[in-house]
Amino acid sequence: MREVAVIGAGMTKFGELWDMSLRDLFVDSALKAMNDAGVDILDSIYVGNMSAGQFVGQEHLGPLVADQLGMPGVPAMRIESACASGGMAIRSAFFEVASGMSDLVLASGIEKMNDGADVTGVLATASDQEEEVYYGVTFPGLYAMIARAHMEKYGTTEEDLSWVSVKAHKNGAKNPHAQFRRVMSLEDVMTSSVVAEPLRLLHCSPVTDGGAAVLLCPLDRAHEFTDKPVKILGTGAATSSLALANRPDPADLDVVELSGKRAYEMANLEPGDIDVAEVHDCFAIAEICCYEALGFVGKGEGKDAAREGVTDLGGKIPVNVSGGLKSKGHPVGATGVAQAVTIVDQLRGQGGDVQVEGAKVGLAQNMGGSGASSVVHIFQGV
Amino acid sequence: MREVAVIGAGMTKFGELWDMSLRDLFVDSALKAMNDAGVDILDSIYVGNMSAGQFVGQEHLGPLVADQLGMPGVPAMRIESACASGGMAIRSAFFEVASGMSDLVLASGIEKMNDGADVTGVLATASDQEEEVYYGVTFPGLYAMIARAHMEKYGTTEEDLSWVSVKAHKNGAKNPHAQFRRVMSLEDVMTSSVVAEPLRLLHCSPVTDGGAAVLLCPLDRAHEFTDKPVKILGTGAATSSLALANRPDPADLDVVELSGKRAYEMANLEPGDIDVAEVHDCFAIAEICCYEALGFVGKGEGKDAAREGVTDLGGKIPVNVSGGLKSKGHPVGATGVAQAVTIVDQLRGQGGDVQVEGAKVGLAQNMGGSGASSVVHIFQGV
Repeated sequence: MREVAVIGAGMTKFGELWDMSLRDLFVDSALKAMNDAGVDILDSIYVGNMSAGQFVGQEHLGPLVADQLGMPGVPAMRIESACASGGMAIRSAFFEVASGMSDLVLASGIEKMNDGADVTGVLATASDQEEEVYYGVTFPGLYAMIARAHMEKYGTTEEDLSWVSVKAHKNGAKNPHAQFRRVMSLEDVMTSSVVAEPLRLLHCSPVTDGGAAVLLCPLDRAHEFTDKPVKILGTGAATSSLALANRPDPADLDVVELSGKRAYEMANLEPGDIDVAEVHDCFAIAEICCYEALGFVGKGEGKDAAREGVTDLGGKIPVNVSGGLKSKGHPVGATGVAQAVTIVDQLRGQGGDVQVEGAKVGLAQNMGGSGASSVVHIFQGV
Repeated sequence: MREVAVIGAGMTKFGELWDMSLRDLFVDSALKAMNDAGVDILDSIYVGNMSAGQFVGQEHLGPLVADQLGMPGVPAMRIESACASGGMAIRSAFFEVASGMSDLVLASGIEKMNDGADVTGVLATASDQEEEVYYGVTFPGLYAMIARAHMEKYGTTEEDLSWVSVKAHKNGAKNPHAQFRRVMSLEDVMTSSVVAEPLRLLHCSPVTDGGAAVLLCPLDRAHEFTDKPVKILGTGAATSSLALANRPDPADLDVVELSGKRAYEMANLEPGDIDVAEVHDCFAIAEICCYEALGFVGKGEGKDAAREGVTDLGGKIPVNVSGGLKSKGHPVGATGVAQAVTIVDQLRGQGGDVQVEGAKVGLAQNMGGSGASSVVHIFQGV
């Protein structure tokens, strides 16, 4: 297998971007990644997207984005795994380069959520229609059940959840791409309105438009394009039952653990080797579960990590220095690629106000549904 | 790059399958492919699907299908490129095996179209929303414009189109998986009702439910599983402008020509080396354009091929011996994989009543939209 590196990365501002269409989100982020590497040709494009068909009435994004980039002809396809679509697009691009088929492959993710669609209804189609949606549950409800199970099993509290959001906003306030650049106090979070008990508004990621892209090439060609390539050491993916009720234990995200285990094995690394991580905090409870599933802390210890600063900047393992999905925003199909952009920035020492000093190895974990799919990538600055 | 082979293939009956859900279509076809190879474990699953989100309110098919197969945990993702989703799923699976990452990778395609959705409206989201759909055009209209352009440029007639449909039904009548197993006369076709002039009902593929799957593994392991592996010699993909009006010439499917050229180059073969082919005849005019774009006949000669028997069983290059999309049916995301199933059957000498004698090399061409994406695979019995 050929070794693969990221040679360019870029993303749009995240937010309610009423002046940018789905195609604008792609072109803006793709050109940033390509310009970052000084590249004006591509061998192939992958575009992660959850549901442009439902959000804006447009399927068939492969030719759309190649065309909009001024590159009709280039092979392009859409990858979908709900909110893990972006991470899966990186995985697909990785395979194409690793196989020896292509040298310059763009992995992008885009989602246009603010365009009039019933967002909660569309997002619900990432859960099990027959076993969940028909009975009326949506994602805040599903993650509320995960939170309740975690509280029951490990003694996690609403305050524990809230510290995750406080940390997210503290970091996101320093991220020029973030949707919400406001510091939030513990009181702000704990008095925000209840969405699905015990989850409050500030425990939930927002509705966001955005795009992100990373450009991959064989490691042995990377220095043609950049002084600071970032090697992909490992990719791990997994699924679990689509319906939450069919999982062994709703308090543990088994899909994250399995995808992480596969990525660690491929990279020949352990959790303690990770210097900085972006994880899928679609709801505050998800971040706590991810700490545990990825081995950053022991089972049941996730609840204390944010409060005690373990995952804060300067802590043992800084997590979501970008502000995470909570503060940076969560354009669902773009999120996994945006996580990679943050990690690439960190490993190049371009992390700005949230740079983790001396970061050499970073991890990005991207999840779909209530924990039905997950993909983990491990990166190393070289 | 590791060499890759198909070791198992299977598909559901195609048709209006009111007693089968989306998940049934996957499980039925996946188990057929796995049982064909005697395999009960998988390393990874790709599922080609155009629009389950709009057709049946279900995105996130990766974990759904892994779960339904009784294999939660296995990495799985959905591939979308409109009606070329199935072919692109095979391409993705090919890369994963070729890279050395995985050994047993299932490439499947499923589409449940008969479940109450506005099918024409959903399919239209594969064309350009901003430049085409908003003005009211749907796919029969787009292909009617391609037909008119071809008639103008090459003198193609309604009768030429009709011979393609006559051939399709003659072959499909012998295919136990086909939706319409009826022979149709030239008069039947030419007197069927007009859908979008000059296209009549019997020039158009139907609305179909179906699933298909092929199981890939490294060529050097293929004989562990089957006496008749089928090697994938080449994969070629391309895009063109999503909107028909932006193409250089609507009479020629440039996307098919480019994807074919790439596949021929990878396989180191020429059109004359192909013994049997399945091409994307969503409308009769598309098959005529594909003859030309794939080099089976010269430019402008496609109109005569079906009438003169060039592409008939026993002809120079039999095309769509399965009955094609017209007679076999066109469950959009499954079509590309079903084409591969037919070619695999042919190269194993298991083509039944439509076996092409001595077929050694076969080609499958799968298209999205009005010719905005295309993927070609070339197979060889080994």
